[in-house]
Amino acid sequence: MESTSIQQVALAELALRDLAEGRTELLENALEELHPAEIAGLLEGMPPEPRQATWALVPEAQRGEVLAYIHDEARASLIDEMQPEELVEAAEQMDDEDLAEVLNVLPTDLTETVLTALDEDHRLRIEAVLSYPEGTAGRLMSTNVLSVRADVTLAVVLRWLRRHRALPPHTDSLMVVDDDGRYLGRLDMGLVVTGDPDSLVAAVMETGAELVRADATEADLTSLFERRDLISVAVLDEEDRLLGRITIDDVVDVIREEADRRLLQSAGLEAEEDLFAPVLPSARRRGVWLGINLMTVFLAAWVIGRFEDALEKIVALAVLMPVVASMGGIAGSQTLTLTIRGLALNQIADSNLRWLLLKELGVGALNGLVWAALVALVTLLWFHSTGLALVIAVAMLLNLLAAAFSGIAVPLILHRLGIDPALSGAVILTTVTDVVGFLSFLGLASLFLI
Amino acid sequence: MESTSIQQVALAELALRDLAEGRTELLENALEELHPAEIAGLLEGMPPEPRQATWALVPEAQRGEVLAYIHDEARASLIDEMQPEELVEAAEQMDDEDLAEVLNVLPTDLTETVLTALDEDHRLRIEAVLSYPEGTAGRLMSTNVLSVRADVTLAVVLRWLRRHRALPPHTDSLMVVDDDGRYLGRLDMGLVVTGDPDSLVAAVMETGAELVRADATEADLTSLFERRDLISVAVLDEEDRLLGRITIDDVVDVIREEADRRLLQSAGLEAEEDLFAPVLPSARRRGVWLGINLMTVFLAAWVIGRFEDALEKIVALAVLMPVVASMGGIAGSQTLTLTIRGLALNQIADSNLRWLLLKELGVGALNGLVWAALVALVTLLWFHSTGLALVIAVAMLLNLLAAAFSGIAVPLILHRLGIDPALSGAVILTTVTDVVGFLSFLGLASLFLI
Repeated sequence: MESTSIQQVALAELALRDLAEGRTELLENALEELHPAEIAGLLEGMPPEPRQATWALVPEAQRGEVLAYIHDEARASLIDEMQPEELVEAAEQMDDEDLAEVLNVLPTDLTETVLTALDEDHRLRIEAVLSYPEGTAGRLMSTNVLSVRADVTLAVVLRWLRRHRALPPHTDSLMVVDDDGRYLGRLDMGLVVTGDPDSLVAAVMETGAELVRADATEADLTSLFERRDLISVAVLDEEDRLLGRITIDDVVDVIREEADRRLLQSAGLEAEEDLFAPVLPSARRRGVWLGINLMTVFLAAWVIGRFEDALEKIVALAVLMPVVASMGGIAGSQTLTLTIRGLALNQIADSNLRWLLLKELGVGALNGLVWAALVALVTLLWFHSTGLALVIAVAMLLNLLAAAFSGIAVPLILHRLGIDPALSGAVILTTVTDVVGFLSFLGLASLFLI
Repeated sequence: MESTSIQQVALAELALRDLAEGRTELLENALEELHPAEIAGLLEGMPPEPRQATWALVPEAQRGEVLAYIHDEARASLIDEMQPEELVEAAEQMDDEDLAEVLNVLPTDLTETVLTALDEDHRLRIEAVLSYPEGTAGRLMSTNVLSVRADVTLAVVLRWLRRHRALPPHTDSLMVVDDDGRYLGRLDMGLVVTGDPDSLVAAVMETGAELVRADATEADLTSLFERRDLISVAVLDEEDRLLGRITIDDVVDVIREEADRRLLQSAGLEAEEDLFAPVLPSARRRGVWLGINLMTVFLAAWVIGRFEDALEKIVALAVLMPVVASMGGIAGSQTLTLTIRGLALNQIADSNLRWLLLKELGVGALNGLVWAALVALVTLLWFHSTGLALVIAVAMLLNLLAAAFSGIAVPLILHRLGIDPALSGAVILTTVTDVVGFLSFLGLASLFLI
């Protein structure tokens, strides 16, 4: 196990060297032996050209599986280069929910091509999944689900199961439905095996088990699976009819993508930024964020510009002003991060908001006093001015209090406006701490030192 | 489902109001009906005092389960206040791996108390799990695992299973072992049900299935489960003896904790910071990070201080210098975030490093040129100085190139030194972009404008 990551890196080195030298036999052999998940990992770690060259060597029979395992950002780069007939071949090998994800990034005409090429049954299942909006339970579900009636015995269920060559992956339970396909409960696979064969399904099924509606959000799903340690859950429509089931492996992917999205968005990157995307699109995507930042930093510069007079007279102000702004930014981003996490976990409500705000202001005041005292001391030793030392200390304390307040207020306001605070919270917060930092420091200096 | 989060918030409101008014009947009734996972969520969203008050109302029979479901940071605050006998009672209700996690945060003498109170068998199992270091597979495994011999038929396995009242949770497969307890392969539960009853286990078991050693790291485990869509995996010692198994629910917790840790650490917060921790410990923990930042920002201030002469003569330098530093910081943190993610996914190797560096420098140069031109234009309009406009444009371009370079170099160097770049990468990077930003802008201005 520990060697997996080392192997992957070594294999990537080998593949890149072979491709560069135009030899492909070793790589082809390796690809035949690798698990599709390992091929996916290999492809993700490659720049665009070797990635395409390696993809061309992946056996056709493996491609659907590899596309199912590979992360979104790399998947898009592979699909872009595939021919319609290759896509159809890959599509035939994929699970409903994986195929729905792939179709999602295809242009409409290609989606049609792929769908019409599938057999009737498969196509209807995919179309059912595609009819639900992205980010909902309906879109994540598999319609490949075993359901039984409540009025049969476990012995009958066991005999019926035995007629299957294999069960759908991750079948930890069977769904119990009535004649109209309405969901009645779940029957644990362990119970099928250990229960009395003469028991009726109705007598041993679990009726209060967790279930979700097709329009449940991904956030609801991840917290449900995480909280309740589920392997699979039934998906129902508004009339309680069983539509399919969602399994933990797809939820794990959602959890990973969500964590990834949050991490990338905090730096103003798009949710599916590929480390190995070419220069031009990368620069364009990231440029947007730089442009937004430029506006906020010019706002800060404008604030500084209001105090040209003071800056001309006391040059130490220019030297020290980043200290005040930066400490506010750091303290504010700590509060912001905790608030964003609290919102994501539904931990923040009107009832504890006041407690939380007072606590964060307390933390800000305490750290403000401690570090303001130190900064004042350094300022005194450096510039030998008691007035300047006092001004910077007061400005820092004020900025840390403003940071604590906005670290809670900014994400809460964004959240109520329906904007994800993970994306824009940080840039708004540092604008506040920059402006308050410069304004308080330079303003106090103008008032008392000039 | 969609109402879960709303219910949770409403319940928290109710609980806090009732507690404040000294009424507890409604809350007690609610606690009796809630799933332990829901109680855990409720407790996590409470400030310290109502959290303790509510915890005191949780039925004793539920406490072990609640402690198993609750997130680490809140768990510690509950355990701190529990009496030894309460801990023992809760311990008896918990799975091996959950109990090991709880024992982990207990003082040594309390751990002893709890362990000696458990029955012999349970104690030995826990001690086995505790003998592995934290963060390894051994620590996450459950020793409650069903194993069968290879030389029996599926019919015998089925009869044997039927003698169990219930199977361990998440039993998707049985482990096949030899007489010495050495692992031979896994037997899918689906196969036990659908297979020919006369088949020998040896004939139908999967021998090449994924497995882990007890010393495998959590990172290995999460990528294995994520990549291979596993429900459970066997844990072996160095001599291939079966020690236990790890199930997806515990891996999901690790994935969530890891994402949480990364998010919090990026803001210099401790991995298990509790939103509802009291002021004093919160301020102390966060103060460390502020102190580190203070040193780096004083380094930047010192750099500015080298140019007091230039700042005195051209006050516009003080106004504009944050623009150069800030744009470098933003661009650098984008590259840094992508590099850290690439390292976590094992996507960065010597073979693609050069490609990556050139690409990031390309992105930096492109965005540098675009935004430098715009900043030069604004500077020209604002301060009517072509020289100043040229100086700020060149400084910005230089800083964006420095940002791209350090966005790759800083995390790679930290990674090679065995330091987690997610923790300290950002602070080092912004120090670089601040220093390079101020140095290039003020330095160029000193050379050409004065």
